[in-house]
Amino acid sequence: MELKQAFDTVRQRSVSICAPLQTEDYVVQPVVDVSPPKWHLGHTTWFFETFVLQPNLNGYQVFNTDYNFVFNSYYESVGARVIRTDRGNLSRPGVADVYRYREYVDKEMGKLLAQDISKELHALITLGLNHEEQHQELLVTDIKYILGHNPLFPAYQEDYNFKEQPVASSHFIAFPAGIYEIGYTGEGFCFDNELNRHKVYLEEFSISSALVTNAEYLEFMKAGGYTDFRHWHAEGWDWVKTNKINAPLYWHEVDGDWMNYTLKGFRAIDPSMPLAHISYYEAAAFAAWKGLRLPTENEWEAAAPQLAWGERWEWTESAYLPYPGFVKAPGAIGEYNGKFMVSQMVLRGGSVATPPGHSRITYRNFFHPPLRWQYTGIRLAK
Amino acid sequence: MELKQAFDTVRQRSVSICAPLQTEDYVVQPVVDVSPPKWHLGHTTWFFETFVLQPNLNGYQVFNTDYNFVFNSYYESVGARVIRTDRGNLSRPGVADVYRYREYVDKEMGKLLAQDISKELHALITLGLNHEEQHQELLVTDIKYILGHNPLFPAYQEDYNFKEQPVASSHFIAFPAGIYEIGYTGEGFCFDNELNRHKVYLEEFSISSALVTNAEYLEFMKAGGYTDFRHWHAEGWDWVKTNKINAPLYWHEVDGDWMNYTLKGFRAIDPSMPLAHISYYEAAAFAAWKGLRLPTENEWEAAAPQLAWGERWEWTESAYLPYPGFVKAPGAIGEYNGKFMVSQMVLRGGSVATPPGHSRITYRNFFHPPLRWQYTGIRLAK
Amino acid sequence: MELKQAFDTVRQRSVSICAPLQTEDYVVQPVVDVSPPKWHLGHTTWFFETFVLQPNLNGYQVFNTDYNFVFNSYYESVGARVIRTDRGNLSRPGVADVYRYREYVDKEMGKLLAQDISKELHALITLGLNHEEQHQELLVTDIKYILGHNPLFPAYQEDYNFKEQPVASSHFIAFPAGIYEIGYTGEGFCFDNELNRHKVYLEEFSISSALVTNAEYLEFMKAGGYTDFRHWHAEGWDWVKTNKINAPLYWHEVDGDWMNYTLKGFRAIDPSMPLAHISYYEAAAFAAWKGLRLPTENEWEAAAPQLAWGERWEWTESAYLPYPGFVKAPGAIGEYNGKFMVSQMVLRGGSVATPPGHSRITYRNFFHPPLRWQYTGIRLAK
Amino acid sequence: MELKQAFDTVRQRSVSICAPLQTEDYVVQPVVDVSPPKWHLGHTTWFFETFVLQPNLNGYQVFNTDYNFVFNSYYESVGARVIRTDRGNLSRPGVADVYRYREYVDKEMGKLLAQDISKELHALITLGLNHEEQHQELLVTDIKYILGHNPLFPAYQEDYNFKEQPVASSHFIAFPAGIYEIGYTGEGFCFDNELNRHKVYLEEFSISSALVTNAEYLEFMKAGGYTDFRHWHAEGWDWVKTNKINAPLYWHEVDGDWMNYTLKGFRAIDPSMPLAHISYYEAAAFAAWKGLRLPTENEWEAAAPQLAWGERWEWTESAYLPYPGFVKAPGAIGEYNGKFMVSQMVLRGGSVATPPGHSRITYRNFFHPPLRWQYTGIRLAK
Repeated sequence: MELKQAFDTVRQRSVSICAPLQTEDYVVQPVVDVSPPKWHLGHTTWFFETFVLQPNLNGYQVFNTDYNFVFNSYYESVGARVIRTDRGNLSRPGVADVYRYREYVDKEMGKLLAQDISKELHALITLGLNHEEQHQELLVTDIKYILGHNPLFPAYQEDYNFKEQPVASSHFIAFPAGIYEIGYTGEGFCFDNELNRHKVYLEEFSISSALVTNAEYLEFMKAGGYTDFRHWHAEGWDWVKTNKINAPLYWHEVDGDWMNYTLKGFRAIDPSMPLAHISYYEAAAFAAWKGLRLPTENEWEAAAPQLAWGERWEWTESAYLPYPGFVKAPGAIGEYNGKFMVSQMVLRGGSVATPPGHSRITYRNFFHPPLRWQYTGIRLAK
Repeated sequence: MELKQAFDTVRQRSVSICAPLQTEDYVVQPVVDVSPPKWHLGHTTWFFETFVLQPNLNGYQVFNTDYNFVFNSYYESVGARVIRTDRGNLSRPGVADVYRYREYVDKEMGKLLAQDISKELHALITLGLNHEEQHQELLVTDIKYILGHNPLFPAYQEDYNFKEQPVASSHFIAFPAGIYEIGYTGEGFCFDNELNRHKVYLEEFSISSALVTNAEYLEFMKAGGYTDFRHWHAEGWDWVKTNKINAPLYWHEVDGDWMNYTLKGFRAIDPSMPLAHISYYEAAAFAAWKGLRLPTENEWEAAAPQLAWGERWEWTESAYLPYPGFVKAPGAIGEYNGKFMVSQMVLRGGSVATPPGHSRITYRNFFHPPLRWQYTGIRLAK
Repeated sequence: MELKQAFDTVRQRSVSICAPLQTEDYVVQPVVDVSPPKWHLGHTTWFFETFVLQPNLNGYQVFNTDYNFVFNSYYESVGARVIRTDRGNLSRPGVADVYRYREYVDKEMGKLLAQDISKELHALITLGLNHEEQHQELLVTDIKYILGHNPLFPAYQEDYNFKEQPVASSHFIAFPAGIYEIGYTGEGFCFDNELNRHKVYLEEFSISSALVTNAEYLEFMKAGGYTDFRHWHAEGWDWVKTNKINAPLYWHEVDGDWMNYTLKGFRAIDPSMPLAHISYYEAAAFAAWKGLRLPTENEWEAAAPQLAWGERWEWTESAYLPYPGFVKAPGAIGEYNGKFMVSQMVLRGGSVATPPGHSRITYRNFFHPPLRWQYTGIRLAK
Repeated sequence: MELKQAFDTVRQRSVSICAPLQTEDYVVQPVVDVSPPKWHLGHTTWFFETFVLQPNLNGYQVFNTDYNFVFNSYYESVGARVIRTDRGNLSRPGVADVYRYREYVDKEMGKLLAQDISKELHALITLGLNHEEQHQELLVTDIKYILGHNPLFPAYQEDYNFKEQPVASSHFIAFPAGIYEIGYTGEGFCFDNELNRHKVYLEEFSISSALVTNAEYLEFMKAGGYTDFRHWHAEGWDWVKTNKINAPLYWHEVDGDWMNYTLKGFRAIDPSMPLAHISYYEAAAFAAWKGLRLPTENEWEAAAPQLAWGERWEWTESAYLPYPGFVKAPGAIGEYNGKFMVSQMVLRGGSVATPPGHSRITYRNFFHPPLRWQYTGIRLAK
């Protein structure tokens, strides 16, 4: 019964996020990393249809066999997939069809959830809900990208209620050298990449109590941070020059003032707020300019109980790699995390776009170094 | 009054073409040559707003100043343009906004058309209507592309009434060598590229009375036409290999049978119908395989009074170049045709997607050699 | 005996062109259109080995069977070809090997030429010599590109004796409307693309007696010719912006003065000399800026007996297309010209790099519109 | 005196590596990661001229000021650099010029080394020698690439004396959990990336005593390793499909047998030898297929005293990141390692191409995951 309630709550939340959209906003894909909102709605539904209903609900009828082709993402085990860049070319199935698909699957899931659920099935459905929560965060950031790259700069909601707070004054918190335990422990849900819990030895370190603000980052910009290669990784410097980067994503200089696109529309930069929408390269360059560095993910996790976190995903200096004893689950579900453990950096914390309760201090988010469309920010260490 | 009636008829026709669409179909741009239907609707409206209403209707208020940025196409004289490949990324203005824009401009045009119209203004509005008719043909072909590249293969209209006819039996019609007159003459509208009327000397030639059929093209395919470089231009052969071309656009082999996507949906190939959706390279290769050639545009125009034409745009062996004495019009309108006179081939005739009365025997259509999404076909000469 | 002498003279000339090179200069390929000099030396030799010696000299032993793979160019009939962009990656066969290959083939050709030669074989060898002369022009322009794109700007020969002359004062020469005959006539060698001789009707036209000078082109540049889209084809304007073109190839602005790389080294622009190294787009834009146009190839050929020509290949307004009655030769030789008859523009005349006696007034040279590394210039018409 | 001897030995070794080359082999750059041998010879010389002689030898005259432009690599502090992909387009300076440059700089270095050398200068020259040794390894692997991608498959030396040995039988060596010390300690030279020495906590692990053999890898290939996505990282699987990878670099299937290009020429695969020339993706996929994994760099370093290593660079499961307390040196030398600490994987050990004495158990080599032209191999862990 609790699972039924969780299911209904999570599923409804995806729909609520899309409520302010016009039909056209559901369809487009301005860059490869952003997916059309209707794809997110369909894909999360397809997950339940394919991995939960088909193997577990007697007599389940697939809604539309063509949808596997359209809403599969990267699960190589399950049929051919649409080339990812093509998602924005597909006008059909339309938005109304996708909502019908959701209703159909939700109804069937209701039948299943009214039955006795094995422990394995319970875990699988819980995974599906956490999967959908991940796509809810992407829904928010992808919608922001779609609207924020439209020359009309339409607001998502004029009166959108941000959960953001100005950054409190900061100080460095010191931690002694020694052995720390890292990784998930407990009874609740966690992703496979948070396991196994294991010991690490950390040298002594200090970590900032607060995130870097827009004001601090503007100082970096005014000091010529984007034009001095010495602060940058070689790869980051190439990225700056190739893409002519001179500010965070969504920032625009208008008559000498820095403005940015927000979900409420086009606004002046608020200097007291935490910086957002920067790449790993920018995070590392800012830290180098300060004579400091980013924390490792282990340092972050060790320090987390003493930190305020959750408004911005925080780039760490750690690459996304398996923990000691990491084991992939068998079958398609095993493709969930392990296959991405190369060439990405770990982010810790959570953001204003993260569903409530979704993250935790052992949570490992990961993105490629140049990506900026998530609510990414900076916490310094030394 | 006649102009008002023409205006209303042409403007209504664009709306009618889009009537069977779902909102989502208006938005996407699967390839750079295809534009979203809502862009066509907005762009043709922007033409009247920018070139007709703003300079000529006292007190005209621009509907939305941002729309110039969104709906401009290639007119370099008129402000910065959106990068063309970006059209499919713009969810706003939405479809309803675009229709409001059309209604607003049509109403304002009604005011203007109720006034005395100078000869120059009459010509300009007539140009705008011919421009819109060109986009009506693109609307049909772009819609076909959008729906025909969707894995669900949705029909445009299940009961769409094609104007296509099976090809009649063909024979070659001979024309003697001599001087012929080429180019538009008369009182009606023509594009600048049809002028000046001038003399050409043609060697004797023969031209087929009928277009190549699907059946004839299937013979070429079965004879290995796509795998023998000898039939192809070097550039065409590279195109075949790079893009793994083995059939006309929209053709799919299913269990050994050739099917194709049509506006009525996915159907078996009808062998008696005129071949469509082939590139210049394919047209030339087919002709070479036959030991024949394509006609030049001058031969076509000389022969046209004795030919049945209008179902397919016919690739000619002529590059798109200015006629003797060609002069560009001054200002932005001068960008209409002359700037495209390089690297394209001329097509003559008209197609099932061409608005009634839009084409004529002096009409010069032009596309780049590899393009196939228009209703392009083959007529042979020798 | 005459053929033997022609053979020796032409073959020796290729070697003489390369005499001033260092071994390293024979190897590199800075862009796809430029081939390494050792490739030209090998490819022209391969032509005689493959098309002349193998089928016609009893007991001929191929020098090295791997060379077919390395020195084939675009003859699809004769085995797999090396991807063209790869030519600059091949250090072997080395320069000495290539010269040994030439000596071997020349010696075997000597045996063949001492025999009775059929008319067909005579024609084939003559084609091979004209083919080698075409590559001699490419050798000069490719060497210029290789040395002129080296940051050390090494001279080909400090005391290189240019055949260039300052441009004489110019006037327009008028030609009446009427029928003219176009295409090769006579007993000598011509390429297949110069046939058949046929009648054309030309409207009256005037053509400049002289080529455009560097001084005249500098005026265009100073008048902002490269920054005003109105002079340009749409495709040309994209080319200017994408490649940031602001001057002819090899021109560099140094402290406010225009310099250019020449085969003698880096020199100040000589204003009286004929302009060189411009694309078709630049030629057409210059003409548009002048309120004039380029001649068609038919006009050029009709006027040629009254023109001084030969220092620069002259861009015409004509696309490269077959003449009436053009027939491809059978077999690999048939791939010579016909397969390139799409997307290229015709150039007429000849250049300082053209071997003496190689060109003639019916000669049709052709290149893609953006290419500039040939000695291309402008003659105006109206 | 010892430094002078080291200098002479290292400098001579670069020349010896190139002794078997033809002049043409020094010039080409088949892919961006491979540099022309003459560039390596010039660049290592430029390092001594720019960082050692110019600041430290009174009255030193730069050999040729243009060479800074040609032989700089990635040192952003020192003038504009040639785009890296352009190295293979430069025929000048020629090979003889580069050797003259070496002789000139060596002679001037002789003068400097005859003087009293400060501790800092001693360290800088030692860095220069270790830098040259790194390029000596690249010289070998780049020469192999240049010759091994030539259709004639020329041998580097027919009688080249490989230091390779067949792989001994292998077993797993177990290590207990606990704290280990990692990083360089001692008086000799090390790179900045090997510092600081620090503690890590390792869970218990086992590591193979031997490298994977060609025979073992052939089993993976026969078992369909390249066609089953489940073994691969998502990024690795894309790499396999995009590049149609089905074997290690230099392997070719000829009539059903696997051959490979070696420095001695084209040979049958020797099953007993250690596998070489595989990407990180392939290493990880092979380990996954075995149900094992790659060691981390910390595990490798902890185990190294008990391992035989040095024939192959061994991919580890560790990303290349700074050690705790890592500090970049100031100035251009500071660009040496830190700027590459993103998106690369660590390799440990050394290879048959590594100069004797160059590597050590704390040595951290690093390459991007898809690169294969180094002598890279696999050691398994669990």
